[in-house]
Amino acid sequence: MGGDHGPSVTVSAARRALKQHPDIELTLVGRPEVLEPRLRDLDLVDEPRLHIHAATEVVDMDESPAVALKKKKDSSMRVAINLVKEGVVDACVSAGNTGALMATGKFVLKTLPGISRPAICTALPTITGHTHMLDLGANIDCTPEHLLQFAVMGSVLAESVDGNPRPSVGLLNIGSEAIKGNEVVKQASQLIAETRLNYTGFIEGDDIYTGKVDVVVADGFVGNVSLKTAEGLAAMVNQVLKSNFKRNLFTRLAAVIAMPVLNRVRHTLDPRQYNGASLLGLNGIVIKSHGSADEESFANAIKIAVIEIDQSVPKRISQELHQHLSATGDGA
Amino acid sequence: MGGDHGPSVTVSAARRALKQHPDIELTLVGRPEVLEPRLRDLDLVDEPRLHIHAATEVVDMDESPAVALKKKKDSSMRVAINLVKEGVVDACVSAGNTGALMATGKFVLKTLPGISRPAICTALPTITGHTHMLDLGANIDCTPEHLLQFAVMGSVLAESVDGNPRPSVGLLNIGSEAIKGNEVVKQASQLIAETRLNYTGFIEGDDIYTGKVDVVVADGFVGNVSLKTAEGLAAMVNQVLKSNFKRNLFTRLAAVIAMPVLNRVRHTLDPRQYNGASLLGLNGIVIKSHGSADEESFANAIKIAVIEIDQSVPKRISQELHQHLSATGDGA
Repeated sequence: MGGDHGPSVTVSAARRALKQHPDIELTLVGRPEVLEPRLRDLDLVDEPRLHIHAATEVVDMDESPAVALKKKKDSSMRVAINLVKEGVVDACVSAGNTGALMATGKFVLKTLPGISRPAICTALPTITGHTHMLDLGANIDCTPEHLLQFAVMGSVLAESVDGNPRPSVGLLNIGSEAIKGNEVVKQASQLIAETRLNYTGFIEGDDIYTGKVDVVVADGFVGNVSLKTAEGLAAMVNQVLKSNFKRNLFTRLAAVIAMPVLNRVRHTLDPRQYNGASLLGLNGIVIKSHGSADEESFANAIKIAVIEIDQSVPKRISQELHQHLSATGDGA
Repeated sequence: MGGDHGPSVTVSAARRALKQHPDIELTLVGRPEVLEPRLRDLDLVDEPRLHIHAATEVVDMDESPAVALKKKKDSSMRVAINLVKEGVVDACVSAGNTGALMATGKFVLKTLPGISRPAICTALPTITGHTHMLDLGANIDCTPEHLLQFAVMGSVLAESVDGNPRPSVGLLNIGSEAIKGNEVVKQASQLIAETRLNYTGFIEGDDIYTGKVDVVVADGFVGNVSLKTAEGLAAMVNQVLKSNFKRNLFTRLAAVIAMPVLNRVRHTLDPRQYNGASLLGLNGIVIKSHGSADEESFANAIKIAVIEIDQSVPKRISQELHQHLSATGDGA
C-alpha cells in the first residue's frame, strides 16, 4: 500500500513479476476495498498465484517509525512483516517509509545472531557492471564492529546475487593527504582484514562507480550522503543534456539522431534496474523499493526478493558470521 | 613546482593569467634552473610582471605533511607561503600536496581569530549555477562549533566571490526517515540558526547539485566522500557516453552530429572552470589547484586568488565572525 503511487504501481508490478517468475506466489497486503478494484482492472481476480491479505491501516511516508510501530499494528507494512515471521510468506517487499520498515523489521523479525545493526544495501551501476553498497542510512553512528558486520553481510549478498565466489570488499574512506581517515574506519579496516573476506582495503568516493570493488562498506551517514549526491548529480547531468538538446531546431534534430545512443546510455545507467534495497541482518528477507518506483522498478525489487529467497541470504549471513566468529574466537 | 605536471603547466597558466588580469604580478616560486628554460620557451624572460623566487626543494605529492613541514624548509610550497606571511605577495596558489599545503599554511600563517580549523572550500556546478561546498577533507572529526565556523566562512566566500549579498547556507544531513542526523549536525544546526546568516536548514546529498543553497556545510569526511563520489559518477557517465557513441558507424555519425551539443554540456559541467579550492580560515589567502590541473584550470585557480585578494576575504571572515561572536556574547 505504501510508496508514492500505492497499489496502482504495486499491483501491476505484481502481475509483471508473476510472469517473470513462474514459480512464485504473491500476496498483496492492504485494504481489500482498494486492492480488489485494481485486480479487476488488470483482470487478475482469478489469478491463482496472487492473493490478498487484509490490513486496515497504512503507514504514512513521513510518519515517525516509533509511532508507526506503536500505533499502527494493522498497517500493511506490519502485517506483511508478520507474515514473514509466521512463515506464511518468504519475503516482504515494500515501497513504504524506510525508517518504519526497518524499525518494524527489527521489532518483529529481530536481527540475526551476531548482528547488532541491520543495514540497507543496494546495487549501484559501475563502469564494469555493478557494486553493492551498504549502509545507506539505517545507522549513523557506527562502531568498527558494525562496519565489520556490514562487510560480511555485503559480501554474502554479492556472492548470492551475483554468483561471485569471492567478491572484493572495500571500506569507504577519504584520501586526503592530511589525515587518512578517522579512528573508526582505521579500526574497522584492521578487523575486516582479519576475516577471510576478500578485503582490498580503503577506497575513496570516486572508486565506487569505477567498479573497483564488488562491495562498498560505509557508515549510514556517509553512505546515504554518497548515494544522494550521486542521485543529485545524475539528475543534473540529465537536465543539462535535455535542455541543451532542446535549444533549437538543429539541436532537436541532433537529439533525434543521437536518441538511440542516448537511450542505450540511459538504460545502462537506469536506476530502475537497480531498484530494491535489502534490509540485511534481519532474521528474514525484507526489500525496500524506492518510494517513487514505477511498475518496472517495483518488479525489480520483487526479483531481488526472489533471488534472496532462492539463495537463503539470511541463513548464509548467519553461517558466514558464525564461521568468522569461531575462527577469531570473538563472541561479540 | 607541485602538482602532477609541475612547471610545464604552471608557467603557461601564469602567462594566461597575466593576460587575463592586467593589474596583477606573479611570482613563480621554485628551482630557477627548471623555471628559467620554461620562461625562455614561452618567451616570458622579459615579462616585467613575472618574477622568479628561488626555492631549492619540492614537497612530494605523497609526502607526509608533518615530514614536509619539518624537513623541507626550503620547499617551493613553504617559501611561497612565507612570502604571503611577509606581505611580499598577497596570495599563494599551489597544485601540490593538499595536506602539506594546509599544514604549512596553518603553521606559517596561523588561523584567523575565532577559527579553530581552516577548511577546504570549492565551487561546484549546479543546475542553476554553482554552489560553494566545505569542508572537503581537511577536518574529519568536527564539532558543532567547527561546522558553525565553516558556515560563516562559506557564506563570506559566496558573498565575496559571487557578489551575492545574502547567500543561503545549508547543512548536509541525511533524510532517512529513521533518524534525522547525528548529534553533531543537530547541534550545529541550532548554532547556525542563531547567527545572522541566511541559514535554510538541513539539505540532503541530492540537493547539492540542484543548487538549492549557495553554501553547503559538511564535515571533511562527508564532504570529501560526496565530492569524490560525484567525480567518480561523472567519470562513469562520460565513459558510458563515449563507449556508446563509438560502437559502430551509425553511432559515430550520431556523435559527430551531436558533438556541438555534447561539447556545450561538457563545458557547462567542466570541472576545470571550478578548479581552485580555498583554504579558508587561514590568516592569508591560499588556493589549492587540482594536482592534475591543465593550463586553463590552473589559471582559474589564480583567478580565484585574484578575486579573494580584491575582496579581502580573510578580513571579511574575521569581521563576520567578530560580529557574530559579539552578538552572541560567545568568545569561543
